[in-house]
Parts: sequence; structure tokens; C-alpha cells
Amino acid sequence: MGSHQKPSTAGKPIRCKAAVCRVAGAPLVMEEVTVAPPQAHEARIRIVCTSLCQSDVTFWKLKDFPGITPRILGHEAIGIVESVGAEVTELTEGDTVIPVFLPDCGECSDCLSKKSNLCSKLPFKVSPWMPRDGTSRFTDLDGNTIHHFLSVSSFSEYTVVDIAHLTKIDLDGDVQMNRACLLSCGISTGVGAAWRTADVEEGTTVVIFGLGSIGLAVAEGARIRGAARIIGIDMKPEKFDVGQLEDFRVQMVALSCLECIELQVINEMTEGGADYCFECVGLPSLMEEAYACCRKGWGKTIVLGVARPMSEMKLECFEVLHSGKILTGSLFGGLKPKSDIPMLLKRYMDRDLELDKFVTHELDFKEINTAFDLLIEGKSLRCVMWMDR
Amino acid sequence: MGSHQKPSTAGKPIRCKAAVCRVAGAPLVMEEVTVAPPQAHEARIRIVCTSLCQSDVTFWKLKDFPGITPRILGHEAIGIVESVGAEVTELTEGDTVIPVFLPDCGECSDCLSKKSNLCSKLPFKVSPWMPRDGTSRFTDLDGNTIHHFLSVSSFSEYTVVDIAHLTKIDLDGDVQMNRACLLSCGISTGVGAAWRTADVEEGTTVVIFGLGSIGLAVAEGARIRGAARIIGIDMKPEKFDVGQLEDFRVQMVALSCLECIELQVINEMTEGGADYCFECVGLPSLMEEAYACCRKGWGKTIVLGVARPMSEMKLECFEVLHSGKILTGSLFGGLKPKSDIPMLLKRYMDRDLELDKFVTHELDFKEINTAFDLLIEGKSLRCVMWMDR
Ligand SMILES: [Zn+2]
Ligand SMILES: [Zn+2]
Ligand SMILES: [Zn+2]
Ligand SMILES: [Zn+2]
Repeated sequence: MGSHQKPSTAGKPIRCKAAVCRVAGAPLVMEEVTVAPPQAHEARIRIVCTSLCQSDVTFWKLKDFPGITPRILGHEAIGIVESVGAEVTELTEGDTVIPVFLPDCGECSDCLSKKSNLCSKLPFKVSPWMPRDGTSRFTDLDGNTIHHFLSVSSFSEYTVVDIAHLTKIDLDGDVQMNRACLLSCGISTGVGAAWRTADVEEGTTVVIFGLGSIGLAVAEGARIRGAARIIGIDMKPEKFDVGQLEDFRVQMVALSCLECIELQVINEMTEGGADYCFECVGLPSLMEEAYACCRKGWGKTIVLGVARPMSEMKLECFEVLHSGKILTGSLFGGLKPKSDIPMLLKRYMDRDLELDKFVTHELDFKEINTAFDLLIEGKSLRCVMWMDR
Repeated sequence: MGSHQKPSTAGKPIRCKAAVCRVAGAPLVMEEVTVAPPQAHEARIRIVCTSLCQSDVTFWKLKDFPGITPRILGHEAIGIVESVGAEVTELTEGDTVIPVFLPDCGECSDCLSKKSNLCSKLPFKVSPWMPRDGTSRFTDLDGNTIHHFLSVSSFSEYTVVDIAHLTKIDLDGDVQMNRACLLSCGISTGVGAAWRTADVEEGTTVVIFGLGSIGLAVAEGARIRGAARIIGIDMKPEKFDVGQLEDFRVQMVALSCLECIELQVINEMTEGGADYCFECVGLPSLMEEAYACCRKGWGKTIVLGVARPMSEMKLECFEVLHSGKILTGSLFGGLKPKSDIPMLLKRYMDRDLELDKFVTHELDFKEINTAFDLLIEGKSLRCVMWMDR
């Protein structure tokens, strides 16, 4: 279609394939769904690639709120704008966009501040609806509502996304869709956490609890910043071959069990504690351990793992007072989607930031349940699925 | 005595008056004690003024470890060097010094770093002994050991202090001993927390939980930094007259009970949360409330209160991840005693930093138990005691 001509589908519902979560924890069901046209401040996107992130698995398993069915999961993707709703001026049909679970309205005090990436106009929440009007754009063939996920729902050939959740990217050069896609969530989160939230300095020591894609992306961010030592802690060291960890400059420490405090080992390796500890699993006990493993005086603990709802971490008050340690967390690595995704993409195109090595598998969209199996079994980092295959 | 002539007491034990804590929580006993000569890296100090800090009261009450008797409490003071031990080159007889509970050896990686004030060569601990050789310099008239407190023990006409715990000050102009004394602990801690640990920015909102001297010193630091709004929270608003709080630009919120969450009130007053929250009481529940009252995106909570040993604060993991809030604490406000106390003193001499208004009472040393009463009853901020009166 011509880029200045309305597509024939604009303003009409689109029927397409989607992988629907009908029962929490059961294989997704590939079915026909109807995707309504975009409303004001929304765009309908034809997904080109989507990849599987740990949070998809977490919410897929979740029987209780905020788990809900039927739902279209998926939040790490890249696509092409099919049509836009009213009031949309920053995007047009044919634009390549990366959807992000974190909004970036560009107008509120947070989006305008350098210190925050937590939009206060459309505050991030784990909602099953579109963020602005609280309704759904998906129905099944019986006319029943299907819920959204993280304002993205990319496990569908078409989806509707609020423009606050869409970052336009220029496809100068040869940006590969199956690489740029990764900047939509996990890799940006890890790299951003190292650069923005922790602000890792050259020559420092970094300890990463949990070596999934986010943990390795933290390592990648720390490597680029010139960290002197990057220590990775994971319960399944066998999932890596030596070369993989060497690529990321990660030195592995195998955790014998989740309750084993590796404090002494880390203390010896880091000569008194790490400059930065990143918790990428979502376990309160690991968050506490990460805090304990930080160096007194200036050690920072950054929480990136998504813990079970209502779970709490405990800190000894005396330790908080006496240690000078810093505890924080960040969503999307403290990055602002609309300005930072293009920056990260450029760093990839300049062969500075690694993305290729995160893609361990590529599958057809119809093989999505295999992607779940691979991630759950710890066999994949990122599995990219092509929607048109 | 001439400043280059050894005093007649050098190298000999000194008998003098001290207020000894014989029984936890019972009035201090004014008695004669013997103060041994300083050993290597130590100086013996004639205390000129000492003031009472909340931590003296806390440890005075403490029956269990790290409480211990008999002990000479007191850690906020100013004095004159009477004699020095071997290896001491930076101080000499007649120097005016401010003792500080926090060591500053000037040599270790922490003391050399701009990021830390937690000396790793002589790590801070609440010990009843001298820091380097683990013995005492005090004995009573029966020859029994009396314990030290926080490496200072200023409730004695003479005391022995490690040089890592002594800051030399120049008495240019007319530094008043009963003002400079306050920089030894509480006021430095509060002002330092605002300047160094929190790095309060102009135009921001500050909430202070607990309006003792440290809380008001935080307010003073925030006022100098140009904070737009300073909100103080305390259970005993009646202890202030209006003028006192106006001096510190503090707007008062009376806490009806320690368990009442004032979150909503603070949220409304600060339009969504404070930029900085300071906990100056030492209660886990108030630390949690301070964290809750911080603004999403960049709010910092700084713990300054000394909590009961082993007490824990709880944080919801999801909140740590999602809020972008920062939690930290600091000893001595993140200041380095040897360089920052002279800086604060200069700011006072320049009529920039307020010290006078913190001194609500001046007493003779022999009235020390009255000083305890005044602080416990919330009637004093700082009570300065003159040793020679
Ligand atoms: Zn916004
Ligand atoms: Zn994700
Ligand atoms: Zn004190
Ligand atoms: Zn040191």
C-alpha cells in the first residue's frame, strides 16, 4: 500500500490469528480473533516479530488476579502501523514501531523530568484493558471479550496499542526486525539498569543474581561501561556453554540452593562486597542476599526481578543506617522508551551493543508453545517468533 | 602551659571527675576516675564542653549488649589536647579538637574515596574499648575497669581518644566552644544527611519524621539548600513554640500515634509524595512510612534513626521494583569528620549555618542528670554542659 493512502482495512475490524491464553498455565490456543479499529490516541499494529519474556510466563501461570483469562499475552515485539485512531499525529500508517509496556506520554511532570521514567499521566499498571478508556479491542469469534496484557498483547498478528506505549524507529541501514524486537523489554531493561539506574562506573565490580536475558543484559551494559569484574549467580550453570558467558565477560558462581547464602563467597571474590548487585529473579530472599553482598559505603542493590504479589523483603534497620548502602529498583531499566530505544538501536547498529547473542532461537508464530517450553526449561535466552511464518 | 612544653601531667595517669553509668537507666554517678596516658595513635583530651545526644540516652537505657556497665557515656564534645601518645604527628598539646564517634583514618580505600565515610581500617562499631588495642584507659578508684563509649566518652573531665576520631579545628575569630561542640555529632549528622546523603535540591519537598535536634538539623540543611517545603512530623508538637519551627522553616504535622499512617496527609501536602523523607526516630514502622511517603520516580528515604538491635523493616518487593524509590541511610550524615567539620564550622562563623538555636539549655557538668531529664521529656534540643563549672 502507498504510505499516504489509507489502507483498505482502516476503520474496520480485522480478523487474524492470535495465541490466546484460555486457561492459566495451559498451552496457548491459536485461534481467529477480531481486532477492533484503534480509538483516539491509539494505533493498530501489524506485529512482525515478537519474542517471549519471563513476565509472559509469570502471568501465563498466574491463576489469581492480576492473572485473567482469556487473554492475549506478549509484550516484546516490533511491528508496522496499520492504521491510527483520532488525535494521533506522531505516527502514521507504515511506520515501524516498538511497543513497550511502560508508557511515555511526553507531557507529564515525570515524562518531562530527567529523573523519572514513570509516567504519571497514564501510570503503569498491570491491567487487562486499554490504558485510556479501560476497554478491550479483542473479541473471539463468539463475540466474547479477550483481555489485553501490559498494554501490548503482541501474541496476535494485529494488536491495538496506545501511542504512549509506542516508540517509532527509523529503519536506516538494515535494522533487522528480529534484533530490534529485543529492545522492546528485556534487553533494554537490563542495559538500562546498568547505565541509568545503577550508573555503573569503570573498574567496578558487578554481581548479577539470575542469568536470564535480563541478567545477561545487565552484564552487557556493565561490560560496555568497563566494569572490572562481572559475577553471575545462577542455579542452573549447565544452561550455559563457556563461550556464552565469555561473550558477556561473566564469571559464573553456581548457587547450590536458593536458600544458601553465598555471601562469604561473594565477599571474598569482591574483596568486601560488590559495587553493584542486581536481583533479576524476583525472590525476596535473593533481594536480601543481594543487599548483603553489596559493599559498605556505597554499594547499590538494584531490584529488577518481578516478585510474587504482596511478597516482602526484610532489611535490618541497623544495617540500613550503618552500611551506607543504597537500595532501589527500576522498570524498563530507568529508560524513557521514546528517546532511549532509538539510542540503544543506534548502539547496536554501531556494533557497540550486543543483541545477536541473546537470540538463541527463532520459531514460527505457530510454534509459540515450544517457545514457552524452551524458556521454562532454561534452554533459551530470547526466542524470536516471526508472525508471517 | 607553653604550647611547646610538655605538660606536667604528660605520661602520667590523671585523676578527675567523670559521670559514670553504673546501672543501666539509673542516674549517672559523679565520681573520681583515673585516666591513663594515651597510647600510640591516641591523645588525651581535656573536655571543655559536652552536650547530650539521643544515642547517649539510648545506650544508657540498654541493659543488654551492646549496653555495658560501668561505662562513661558522652560522644558530642569539644576539648583541648592535654598530651599525645607515640606516633602522633598531626596533633600536639594545646590543639582544640572535636571528637567524633566515626573514625576517619585518612588512609584506607574508604577514607580516600569521595563516595564513602565508613573507614575500613578502623571500622565503626559500638565497642566498650579503645578502637586500636581493645583495652580501656579508665579505671575507678578501686582499680576496676570502666568502659568506653563510641570511642569518645566525653562525660569525663579527661578522656583518651584515638586520633582517627579527632578533628583538629582552628579557633580563628571567636569560635564559641558551646557552639562548635554541636558539630561533634547530631547537627553534623542532620545537615550532612541533607547535603551529602540526600543531596537535597532547590525547590524540592522534604518530610522529616521526628523533630529532635537531628531532624531539625536536617531541616536546617534543607533550608540552606533552598527546599521549597519542609514538613516535620512528630508526636509531641507541644514541645515547640511557633517561633522555633518558623526559624527552621518547618511546617508541623502532629502524629496522633506511632501506628497511624499519615500517608494520605503527606501525599496531599506534597502532591503525590515527598522528594526526600528522613527518618530520625529509629522505628521500623516509621521507616516504612517514610518510604511510602516518598514520591514515585525519584523519592529518596534516608534512615538516620538508631533502631533497636535486630529490628527489621519490611518493603513490598513489587513496590521496590515499580516505584523507582531509593532507600539509604548514613552515619554522621555521610560526612568525613576531618574535612567536613571545619567546613561546617566556617559556615557557622559566616552566619550561614544555624547552631545557636539548637542550644536550648546550658548546665554545669555536675547537673548532667538534669540534662538527661530534659532530653527524655522532650524539653531540650541540645543541652551543653561546661566541664569547668
Ligand atoms: Zn507521562
Ligand atoms: Zn518483559
Ligand atoms: Zn550522637
Ligand atoms: Zn579509613
